[in-house]
Amino acid sequence: MSVMMQEMSWQDFKAKKDEAVVFLPVGSTEQHGPGLPLSVDAIISTELAKMVAEKINGIVAPTINYGYKSAPLSGGGPLFPGTLDLNGNTLIQIVYDVLEELINDNIKKIFVMNGHYENEAFILEAVDLISRKHENVTIIESSWFGANIISDDVMDKVFDEVEFPGWALEHAAIAETSMMMYFRPDLVHMEKFVEDGVDEELGYAIYPASKCSVPETGLLATARSSSVMKGRLLAENITEKYKEIIKERM
Amino acid sequence: MSVMMQEMSWQDFKAKKDEAVVFLPVGSTEQHGPGLPLSVDAIISTELAKMVAEKINGIVAPTINYGYKSAPLSGGGPLFPGTLDLNGNTLIQIVYDVLEELINDNIKKIFVMNGHYENEAFILEAVDLISRKHENVTIIESSWFGANIISDDVMDKVFDEVEFPGWALEHAAIAETSMMMYFRPDLVHMEKFVEDGVDEELGYAIYPASKCSVPETGLLATARSSSVMKGRLLAENITEKYKEIIKERM
Amino acid sequence: MSVMMQEMSWQDFKAKKDEAVVFLPVGSTEQHGPGLPLSVDAIISTELAKMVAEKINGIVAPTINYGYKSAPLSGGGPLFPGTLDLNGNTLIQIVYDVLEELINDNIKKIFVMNGHYENEAFILEAVDLISRKHENVTIIESSWFGANIISDDVMDKVFDEVEFPGWALEHAAIAETSMMMYFRPDLVHMEKFVEDGVDEELGYAIYPASKCSVPETGLLATARSSSVMKGRLLAENITEKYKEIIKERM
Amino acid sequence: MSVMMQEMSWQDFKAKKDEAVVFLPVGSTEQHGPGLPLSVDAIISTELAKMVAEKINGIVAPTINYGYKSAPLSGGGPLFPGTLDLNGNTLIQIVYDVLEELINDNIKKIFVMNGHYENEAFILEAVDLISRKHENVTIIESSWFGANIISDDVMDKVFDEVEFPGWALEHAAIAETSMMMYFRPDLVHMEKFVEDGVDEELGYAIYPASKCSVPETGLLATARSSSVMKGRLLAENITEKYKEIIKERM
Amino acid sequence: MSVMMQEMSWQDFKAKKDEAVVFLPVGSTEQHGPGLPLSVDAIISTELAKMVAEKINGIVAPTINYGYKSAPLSGGGPLFPGTLDLNGNTLIQIVYDVLEELINDNIKKIFVMNGHYENEAFILEAVDLISRKHENVTIIESSWFGANIISDDVMDKVFDEVEFPGWALEHAAIAETSMMMYFRPDLVHMEKFVEDGVDEELGYAIYPASKCSVPETGLLATARSSSVMKGRLLAENITEKYKEIIKERM
Amino acid sequence: MSVMMQEMSWQDFKAKKDEAVVFLPVGSTEQHGPGLPLSVDAIISTELAKMVAEKINGIVAPTINYGYKSAPLSGGGPLFPGTLDLNGNTLIQIVYDVLEELINDNIKKIFVMNGHYENEAFILEAVDLISRKHENVTIIESSWFGANIISDDVMDKVFDEVEFPGWALEHAAIAETSMMMYFRPDLVHMEKFVEDGVDEELGYAIYPASKCSVPETGLLATARSSSVMKGRLLAENITEKYKEIIKERM
Repeated sequence: MSVMMQEMSWQDFKAKKDEAVVFLPVGSTEQHGPGLPLSVDAIISTELAKMVAEKINGIVAPTINYGYKSAPLSGGGPLFPGTLDLNGNTLIQIVYDVLEELINDNIKKIFVMNGHYENEAFILEAVDLISRKHENVTIIESSWFGANIISDDVMDKVFDEVEFPGWALEHAAIAETSMMMYFRPDLVHMEKFVEDGVDEELGYAIYPASKCSVPETGLLATARSSSVMKGRLLAENITEKYKEIIKERM
Repeated sequence: MSVMMQEMSWQDFKAKKDEAVVFLPVGSTEQHGPGLPLSVDAIISTELAKMVAEKINGIVAPTINYGYKSAPLSGGGPLFPGTLDLNGNTLIQIVYDVLEELINDNIKKIFVMNGHYENEAFILEAVDLISRKHENVTIIESSWFGANIISDDVMDKVFDEVEFPGWALEHAAIAETSMMMYFRPDLVHMEKFVEDGVDEELGYAIYPASKCSVPETGLLATARSSSVMKGRLLAENITEKYKEIIKERM
Repeated sequence: MSVMMQEMSWQDFKAKKDEAVVFLPVGSTEQHGPGLPLSVDAIISTELAKMVAEKINGIVAPTINYGYKSAPLSGGGPLFPGTLDLNGNTLIQIVYDVLEELINDNIKKIFVMNGHYENEAFILEAVDLISRKHENVTIIESSWFGANIISDDVMDKVFDEVEFPGWALEHAAIAETSMMMYFRPDLVHMEKFVEDGVDEELGYAIYPASKCSVPETGLLATARSSSVMKGRLLAENITEKYKEIIKERM
Repeated sequence: MSVMMQEMSWQDFKAKKDEAVVFLPVGSTEQHGPGLPLSVDAIISTELAKMVAEKINGIVAPTINYGYKSAPLSGGGPLFPGTLDLNGNTLIQIVYDVLEELINDNIKKIFVMNGHYENEAFILEAVDLISRKHENVTIIESSWFGANIISDDVMDKVFDEVEFPGWALEHAAIAETSMMMYFRPDLVHMEKFVEDGVDEELGYAIYPASKCSVPETGLLATARSSSVMKGRLLAENITEKYKEIIKERM
Repeated sequence: MSVMMQEMSWQDFKAKKDEAVVFLPVGSTEQHGPGLPLSVDAIISTELAKMVAEKINGIVAPTINYGYKSAPLSGGGPLFPGTLDLNGNTLIQIVYDVLEELINDNIKKIFVMNGHYENEAFILEAVDLISRKHENVTIIESSWFGANIISDDVMDKVFDEVEFPGWALEHAAIAETSMMMYFRPDLVHMEKFVEDGVDEELGYAIYPASKCSVPETGLLATARSSSVMKGRLLAENITEKYKEIIKERM
Repeated sequence: MSVMMQEMSWQDFKAKKDEAVVFLPVGSTEQHGPGLPLSVDAIISTELAKMVAEKINGIVAPTINYGYKSAPLSGGGPLFPGTLDLNGNTLIQIVYDVLEELINDNIKKIFVMNGHYENEAFILEAVDLISRKHENVTIIESSWFGANIISDDVMDKVFDEVEFPGWALEHAAIAETSMMMYFRPDLVHMEKFVEDGVDEELGYAIYPASKCSVPETGLLATARSSSVMKGRLLAENITEKYKEIIKERM
């Protein structure tokens, strides 16, 4: 049987739910350069959730396809056409409501799988608010690019040719491109790839938003050296780590 | 090129957006009886949007996979496991934000495609609020089961064996089952179908919510006589009608 | 003693409240054509509540005189002068607060009596939210034009000359005009009556709001054949039905 | 023609509105001792608005029948049965929405007539917010018990036997009782009057709310010496003053 | 050890908290004429809280430095440069959150010390909301200029030369100037003092806000006769009164 | 004249404001181990703002003394007594309101100076929302620990004995301790210092909040080797950098 909740009937869900870990993938609709689609964050978070769910008794709830506002130096910012951002409070509300409904269905273990850098603070606010209200439920939230999720040796293999620029700038770059090659090769257009990027992070934000500090392509770091193999390596390493965390903490 | 925004790069979107009608499908995660999956409303609204988008210069934005609270006599209500409902204000906010972002991308024609009976008032509130702020944008909202969307002759063909019970009760019944057979036959399990249903609508709502007025299966009307052919007939009739409405009003 | 809470002292209310059903009428301030006043929905919901309250041990709380946004094809829409609409969230809040205060006064049975088509989803959201918080209180919500509230034989008598156009279009038409003749004949100006109406419901909504699909008078269906007798028949039939529902369900 | 908007058709309102001052009465549902009804604040604010409207080209919008939370030493507090209070934000929202709708109808002069002591800060917040958005509209807000509204000589005549206790404590006392005798003698039960009251105002508030500092009757000051004549004197003096203020400032 | 929470370590706070009264000072950033600084309300509320805290087992939480909107006839209004106002709902939220966090730290006695006339209704709303949720905590709210806080004999001594104009108009006048002379003489510039003021309170508010009813200096009443001695007298009298109230009621 | 707005009269502010950069310091009330006070974040952000303001034509607005929720691995989390956290939406609202009021005073350049790690996303949401509404104002937001704010050579000098643990874990550690020694030596108790810390960041968050992953002291990294000299070095380096950024970008 599929682990994807949207493919289950309510009776399938009922039969499995009591012992299950439910994963809630949260993505975004955000520019990822000329060669990747707007839904990279939704696709990767959903596919990783699916992989972990298949390793354990997991269920993947329907994906939240919109995320918090793209920032210039971690996603290109709001001025790229096709980047559709939610306000912070909206994201808090939707995550809160879905979590509360899972808890109303007597789910005791929830894993919020984030695929979009800028989402994290608002997802955590939702989790915190629901957790204060329902104290007997364990909720883990993680971004796959969180500290110490990917093992050091895999990082070395992925960033073999190119130096790791930090996760903020690693947008539409080697890690995401490689995982998209692995999960949805039909949506990756390497022929449109150009070498582009940003020199370094700024320690401040300036408004009104402008595109002046972002390359015209939207690429914040190079995707050169991306490969299906790296994508698979990342996906397997990340999901193995999540399996361990779940085993240990839930 | 795909009409699905989540498969486009930002440059694909940019190239097409200025003259396009953008469709926003809104679904739900709601019980649809033993033989249909929880995401029927998301799937049907997305597939119909895709069909219309392909007939005109359309783009389909990522689907909102969660909807407003299921009511006992139009969706079975909140007590079925797997029904995950949003609060009204949450749905208003998310639709509002996505519409505003589309407008910020200079989209002038938006079509909100609703697949879930209970969503409508809250989607309309979002559309009204955004429309008061951005008066030069045309927004149409419609549920595929809205009055006079399906033509009378198609209704006669679909409800040939079974009398039409009204759209509130026509939940997980012939129309939805047939369109799911057409769009996603892999997710329809007719072998789990049972004859079940509700006698008539109640003119009042009673709280706290209970399941006492809803059949145990969650079926509010029969799905007997559903077929791929009826699904195709419905899908083509609906999308042709929408094409006409768009041509006439946008 | 009056059943109207606004005419009671707090001691009158205290003496009666513990066993009482409290009715909360919700109306609107909305155009009802040239011959009916702006407060038709408030007047009818209040008068019906009063009639039911007098049949049982009832109390009628002060009326909420403003309602949710008038829609073109069920109330004429926001562009008619004198139509004063609340935002959806505002109506949710006010109904929620009044219900919570009644519950704080230890009321166990509440009946929200709606007189305005567009209010329903927002009232139900308020009832749902309060009901999840206070599970030992029974709350019924109904619009007098809800399915199966008026009996078939009364419908036949009321729509003897004119075919019933459906409740959305039956705005400022025979049912409302007749009940206003019965309840407040001083406010009905049949001399201003004109034959007017809309051909059929649209299965979609289009924004920005316009008056182009609405007759200039604001009449969506004819009021011809309205009479005091029909008003009385409706009022008595509706209130008798509500008495039964209360007896059965509360 | 009536000045009451709820008695006007939309065409009546349209004919009169452009030059009119629109009055919005805001009341409460609050204990007023054993001899006065729960809707004193709604009745007095509505009746005063009507009197002023009749002196000038005025229109009285439907009354907001619920108000902000009763405080122990200005209204008896929330623990009296029958006192139904709104949260602050709810009152802000409803006043805001009604004002915005009046402004959308091109009304240029609005007078918010408050009858409930505790409402004032929240009404003013709504007025401030709407006024920042629509700067070309003049809005006056006043409580009839505001400083210098009633002239000194009338105050002397009203408080001839009894010393004026300050407006916070003058609750259900001489001024309100007398005006109710003038406006709605059918709702005044002087036979239930008892001599009761509070010694002095406290300069602090203490929570949780209790009734320990409030007389059991809910009377904060005596109503002794109330009369129809005093009620008429007050009503005429207040409305004359408002007529002057409107003439001078609008 | 300091009573100021911002000077304590978490261990200092922990050692003292269980038996303590925690004071939350709420100020404003508002014009106080040419001779007093913008933070008068924050400074006075904080200093008074500190004095009371030192008399008992008290702790002073960090001050909320911004307050609700200045009104023309109690603070000069929003048009004076340097007056930075919060919306009502914002002040409610921040006070609510801080109170809830104190309660989460097991504090049982909280005293909200208000220094800004216009804050009171919104602080009380926050206190009311939190108090309904946490019923076993005693919360007192008071403005130092509340009724009967300052004793009559001190009032006579402070207003020896000048007649007391009422607390709304006593803005940047003798009481505040004298206490600032006592608490922060370095911030008082009597050389900039001018004789200025308003004749009397208005019983109504008019919008849009204007400065036409306010003296150009922002002084609503004279500060003539202010002195360090009066400041000390006031501070000691007020804090002694608060000590008594706490002893009696908490 | 002082650069601190709370020490200025409205006339002082008016005289200086049109060309000024206004700084808004945002702190927190949060445990900082046994040797540092709860207001470290407020003190450091305020003092840095003051230093920059003195270098240019700056004004420092009153500090927001409360911040967003402390997280276990960047501040110790909510379970330490004395940590008083705001909800995310509350912080958004207060920052939004203060920014809007500054803009209403015609300020064109605003610098939000953050001293608390967890605040950043919510401050940025406020800045984004206000910036969309008022597009002609330049707003910079920065945390002093932002990327590339402190120069590499200063980092080397500060972390001479101890390896830099990353900014999340550098809580109550060398940087904060040293700057507190420089700004407020009276509030630093090195005699209470203990060697403590956390091994490494977790790439996930787990709820309900617990203290199990946080040392009992609240120290996430060592403060050993802190000194006044390092504090001064940091303060001067940071403020020099900010002066440059302002010169270049505002």
